[in-house]
Amino acid sequence: MPDKPLFEKMALIGVGLIGSSIAHGARKNGLVGHISATARSEETRRIVAEQNIADTVFETGPEAVAGADLIVICTPVGVFGRVAADIGPHIAPGAIVTDVGSVKKVVVRDVKPHLADGVHLVPGHPVAGTENSGPESGFAELFEDRWCILTPEADTDPDATAKLNAFWKALGSRVEEMTPQHHDLVLAITSHVPHLIAYNIVGTAADLETVTESEVIKFSAGGFRDFTRIAASDPTMWRDVFLNNKDAVLEMLGRFNEDLSALQRAIRWSDGDALFDLFSRTRAIRRSIIDAGQETEAPDFGRPHGQDDDPEN
Amino acid sequence: MPDKPLFEKMALIGVGLIGSSIAHGARKNGLVGHISATARSEETRRIVAEQNIADTVFETGPEAVAGADLIVICTPVGVFGRVAADIGPHIAPGAIVTDVGSVKKVVVRDVKPHLADGVHLVPGHPVAGTENSGPESGFAELFEDRWCILTPEADTDPDATAKLNAFWKALGSRVEEMTPQHHDLVLAITSHVPHLIAYNIVGTAADLETVTESEVIKFSAGGFRDFTRIAASDPTMWRDVFLNNKDAVLEMLGRFNEDLSALQRAIRWSDGDALFDLFSRTRAIRRSIIDAGQETEAPDFGRPHGQDDDPEN
Repeated sequence: MPDKPLFEKMALIGVGLIGSSIAHGARKNGLVGHISATARSEETRRIVAEQNIADTVFETGPEAVAGADLIVICTPVGVFGRVAADIGPHIAPGAIVTDVGSVKKVVVRDVKPHLADGVHLVPGHPVAGTENSGPESGFAELFEDRWCILTPEADTDPDATAKLNAFWKALGSRVEEMTPQHHDLVLAITSHVPHLIAYNIVGTAADLETVTESEVIKFSAGGFRDFTRIAASDPTMWRDVFLNNKDAVLEMLGRFNEDLSALQRAIRWSDGDALFDLFSRTRAIRRSIIDAGQETEAPDFGRPHGQDDDPEN
Repeated sequence: MPDKPLFEKMALIGVGLIGSSIAHGARKNGLVGHISATARSEETRRIVAEQNIADTVFETGPEAVAGADLIVICTPVGVFGRVAADIGPHIAPGAIVTDVGSVKKVVVRDVKPHLADGVHLVPGHPVAGTENSGPESGFAELFEDRWCILTPEADTDPDATAKLNAFWKALGSRVEEMTPQHHDLVLAITSHVPHLIAYNIVGTAADLETVTESEVIKFSAGGFRDFTRIAASDPTMWRDVFLNNKDAVLEMLGRFNEDLSALQRAIRWSDGDALFDLFSRTRAIRRSIIDAGQETEAPDFGRPHGQDDDPEN
């Protein structure tokens, strides 16, 4: 634990899975002196107060950011502009403003216009999460060994970027910097399109007339259930992601569709070699992800197998 | 444990993940008096013998099935015809022949012509597995609480079906009977198309020029890595599934594509309500799968989160 906290006061704007995990992690590692928080929903504020996730909880953004040297916007991306307009005038000079949104071009567009000179905007994206949402689902270890991407602009104060970089490393993350444009392209294929096709196949299965929903549920262990995890993610957050990364998502979806048409054709014409070739190639990618420490080696994601399905088995 | 084994001698034709799991489960639960096995590969026969997965191991099918009252074909579906031609003449009258293939219409077509009158064919499909293959990856608990589908024909001896039903129940499975046609349709959506789109997106990601493979691997925790599990499944097995369930897979893939086009259009035209509507609907399906005991409730499939990623955490 550091001798002195990295930041004196961290303000969380919005407290869901990511915000509450940052609070738990920052406290566990002694990274901040004080945590203030605000959330639009009364229910969220109640949970944050009751579970002592923050030291102080406020109804409004301006109250929460007063005197903070680190402000972390953890709301859905769609309200970033409104949030920034609300808190912008109340942020202390020299403070660092960051966010945890899954798209990054939009942050400069929506947040920056509302910040005074001398306030440092360093957008961020921890590539970590679970399918659960809400302040009660966070935990301090969520970011350990996961990557956090920072997208400072060319003229951003390097000290501000370095300080935020140190904060994320202290939460257990590995940190990489890139442009917002490249971030949005990379995440389109590693996160956004996977979510889209997961949502899509779960919807398709639910709408069939020839196979009942009860059959889909019963026989889901054949592969389908793997998709339902990310298709259970927060709907508001994901709507906002797709509305704000349209170009990159449509581009990657175009590639996906092109490849799927080729596969479809291989099936129609019984081209077993083409199928076998792809199916062999994809195995190596999973191996690399496991070797890179981004996935568990245990079969079936380490899901429990046994009569009581006890996760401790 | 029953007083007397259900079968005196079980012959396994092919010993991979499923075959070895049946052997472990049958032995653990005292379901068979003797287990014989054969496999085409010398390496597999060596592992089966060394790890004592079967009581006797043979180079040829006819040797393995001699005197067996239960024969379980566990090879890839593509060689069922060849296997049946090989063992058919050597199967004792009254024996039950079954299989564990992921497609079922093909079993009657390829296996039945080679069986003598008085041999009972009851095709089966345990909807269970992991991404690992080979005789060393099996374990006795694989089938516990998972469904096994049997597809007897109208004129199949009901006693034979009942006996095989009891065998799977004793391995821990829930058992359902349906027609092979319906099986192949249900599994097309709950298993075959999910595998196809998982293989496809992993291939698409690997082939991009604008995003490196190293970036795909690093940032895979955003959702992509969930797909790599089933895209690491056995290539031969899956090639044979697609070649032998063409019609149902192409039909379900057509529905998937139709729905994906609608989603693509919603993104292009910024129809947030359509996106939100689908993303909310799909959550309930996962909940039902968990409630039906077919999925773990633990976030992130119960993947470990922590510094050492120790599955015991």
